[in-house]
Amino acid sequence: MAKKKAKTNGIVEKKLIGIADTVVVAAEHSKDPTFSIPIRSLANVNFDEKRGLIELGKRKQARSFFNVGMAKKFMQTVLVADALAELQRADLTTSLREIYYRTKHTIKDSHENTFDSQNESDPLIEDLEVTLAALREELHVRAENAGSIVGPVVFIDDGDRVDCSRLGKGGYSVPSIVEPEYLQIASCKADFVLLVEKGTQWNRLSEDKFWRRYNCVLLTGNGQPPRGVRRLARRLHEEYNLPVYVLVDNDPWGYYIYSVVKQGSINLAFESQRMAIPKAKFIGLSSADPDHYGLPRNVGIKLNDKDISRARELMKYKWFQKKEWQNEIKRMLTSELKYELDALANKDFQYLTKTYLPRKLKEKDWLD
Amino acid sequence: MAKKKAKTNGIVEKKLIGIADTVVVAAEHSKDPTFSIPIRSLANVNFDEKRGLIELGKRKQARSFFNVGMAKKFMQTVLVADALAELQRADLTTSLREIYYRTKHTIKDSHENTFDSQNESDPLIEDLEVTLAALREELHVRAENAGSIVGPVVFIDDGDRVDCSRLGKGGYSVPSIVEPEYLQIASCKADFVLLVEKGTQWNRLSEDKFWRRYNCVLLTGNGQPPRGVRRLARRLHEEYNLPVYVLVDNDPWGYYIYSVVKQGSINLAFESQRMAIPKAKFIGLSSADPDHYGLPRNVGIKLNDKDISRARELMKYKWFQKKEWQNEIKRMLTSELKYELDALANKDFQYLTKTYLPRKLKEKDWLD
Repeated sequence: MAKKKAKTNGIVEKKLIGIADTVVVAAEHSKDPTFSIPIRSLANVNFDEKRGLIELGKRKQARSFFNVGMAKKFMQTVLVADALAELQRADLTTSLREIYYRTKHTIKDSHENTFDSQNESDPLIEDLEVTLAALREELHVRAENAGSIVGPVVFIDDGDRVDCSRLGKGGYSVPSIVEPEYLQIASCKADFVLLVEKGTQWNRLSEDKFWRRYNCVLLTGNGQPPRGVRRLARRLHEEYNLPVYVLVDNDPWGYYIYSVVKQGSINLAFESQRMAIPKAKFIGLSSADPDHYGLPRNVGIKLNDKDISRARELMKYKWFQKKEWQNEIKRMLTSELKYELDALANKDFQYLTKTYLPRKLKEKDWLD
Repeated sequence: MAKKKAKTNGIVEKKLIGIADTVVVAAEHSKDPTFSIPIRSLANVNFDEKRGLIELGKRKQARSFFNVGMAKKFMQTVLVADALAELQRADLTTSLREIYYRTKHTIKDSHENTFDSQNESDPLIEDLEVTLAALREELHVRAENAGSIVGPVVFIDDGDRVDCSRLGKGGYSVPSIVEPEYLQIASCKADFVLLVEKGTQWNRLSEDKFWRRYNCVLLTGNGQPPRGVRRLARRLHEEYNLPVYVLVDNDPWGYYIYSVVKQGSINLAFESQRMAIPKAKFIGLSSADPDHYGLPRNVGIKLNDKDISRARELMKYKWFQKKEWQNEIKRMLTSELKYELDALANKDFQYLTKTYLPRKLKEKDWLD
C-alpha cells in the first residue's frame, strides 16, 4: 500500500519540506524567514459567475519570523508543517484534533505551550492547504466519516474490491479521505448520483432498491454532507460524467447545503476548485412541491424569524440571482412554511420512492 | 425478501392488531376500551445487581377511552399502532419522524390535528414497545445509521454476502436495524469486539489493520453508539460469545457511554434486556492511563464544573459502586483533568495501535 502511494505523497511532502527550506535558506542568508500566505477573509472571496464557483482572490499576506506579533504563529506554522510531513513520510492519516495534540508541548525552560487550543492549529492547517495548493485530504488530514453509499459502483480500497451493488441495504461506509491515492473507482455503471441530505430518506431509497430501478448511486452524509461525501460526488461527476442531483429539506438550510455542494462555501473558498460541483441540480424539496404533490398545509412547519432572515440573506447571494431561484425562495417566504422530506410520508411511507422522485426525474423538474 | 420475513413480522403484527381488538371487543360489550401500559418513569426503574441490568419494574397504568384526560392519547395510541401495523404488512421500515407525519391529519369537521408535534407520537411508540414487549427495531422503526464495522465477520444483508474483512478501511455502514430478520450473521471468526467511541480512533485502527493482527471486529458509532451499533455488539457477544471491550475518552461522558453499553440506560430501561451487555469491559481511557503511559499533564483538559458534578453523580449510581470504579472516578476528580483518546497522538500518531491497545490487551488492563 505504502509503495503504491509513494508518488503522490512525494509531491505533497516536497511542498511541506519547502516550508522548512524557507527557514533554512533565510537563516543562511541572515534574512528574516517569511511565508506568503493567501488571505482567507471574506474580502478576498469572489464568486466566479462563468465557472460557477466561490473562489479565493489573489491577495496574500506575509508571515515572518522577526516580527514580534508573528513570531509565535510562524513557529506554530513550522511545527504543524513538520507534523504534516511526518504523516506523509509514514503514509498515515489523522484528524485535526490529533495534529493539535501531536504538536503541543511545553517550550523548553518555560511554562509556555506551543499551542493552547485547537483553535490555534486548525487555521494554520488551512493556511498550509491554501499556500501549498493541497487539499486537506492530500495533507492526510481526515474529517468525519459519516457517509453511506449503495449502487452500481466498484471501489478499490486497500486492495479490496468493494462492489456497492452487493452490500445489501447498509452499503459502504464512505471514508473521510477518498482521494485517488486512497480510494480508486474501478468502475461505475450508474446514470446519475443522488446525493441525499438525511439518512432517513437514504434508508428508504436503499431499502426500496431505488438505485437498481433508476440505475443511480445513492449517497448520503447523514446530515450536511461531510468533505469525503462531497469529494466522492465530485469524483463520480468528473471522472464518470454523472449528473449530481441533490435532495434536501425545503428550508433555508436545505438551500444552503445545495449551494455548498454546487459552488462551494465562503469559509472554504480555496477548496471550491476541487470540491464544488457547479453543474449539480436541486431536485427538491422545492417550495412548489407541496402544491404539485398535494401535501397538506398541516405538515408544513411555520418559518421562524431565523428562517426568514436566512432566506432573505440567501436571496442576496450572487449565486441565487437566477429568476427561478428568486421565485423558489420568495414562494417559501410567501407561504410562511417550510417542509421536511419526511413530510412526504404523510401520503404514504413509500411516496418518495414510488411517486415523488420518479415524477421529478421524468419531468426533469429540478433547479439549476 | 418479504416472504422470508413473513414469520417474524406475523408475531409483531398480531400484537399490534391486538390493540385494535381491544377497542372492538370493548365496544361490542359496551365497555370502556382500556390498555394496561407499563410505567416508564424513574420510580419504576430498578438496577438488578445479579443480572447487571437496569430494568423496568412491574407497575402499570391504565389508559382508557372514556376518560376525558385520556381520550385523545388513547386515540393517538390507536393511530400509531395502526401505522406500525401498516409497516409490518408492507414489510417496510421508517423513522420516528415519519410515523409522526404519517399519523398527522386534521380531524374531520374540526380544526384539531391528531398530533401537533413529534413529542406526542414518540412516547406512544415507546408505550407500545414496552406494552407489546417488542424492540423498536421489531416495530420497524429506525434510528440513525451512523456506524462502521470492519473485521472477520460476514453478514447477509438483503441476500448479499457482506464480508467485512474485504471492505478496505471504509468498511460496512451499519444499518439502524440489525435484527435477524434484516441482517444475518453468516460467520464470525473474531476473538473479540472493540467498540470504539469516536470515528477518529476507529479510523486509526482500521487504517492500521489492527483487526487483522488482533483478530477482532472494529465497531464504531462515530460518537455515542446508536441503537444499531449497540444491538450489533450485543448480537456478536451473545451469538458468537465474543467479549466486548469499550474504548472511550477519559471523561464522565465516556464513563456514561460505557455504562449504557453495559447495563442500559434509565430512559430506555425496558430495552436493557435486549440491548445491554452486562459483561462488557471498559478498556480505557482510564484515569490511571496518563500515569501508566506517560502522557504529559498539558494534554489533559481541566475538568469544568459540569464534569465534576457529573462525575460525582456517577459515583452514586448503583452500577458504579465497585471499588475499582470508585477509585477510577475519584482519581479523575483528584487529578482535576480529563483526557481524550486523541491525546495519545501526543506520543506518536500510531501510539493507540502500536503501544496502548497491545499493552492493554496483554495486561488484561480493563475495568468490569
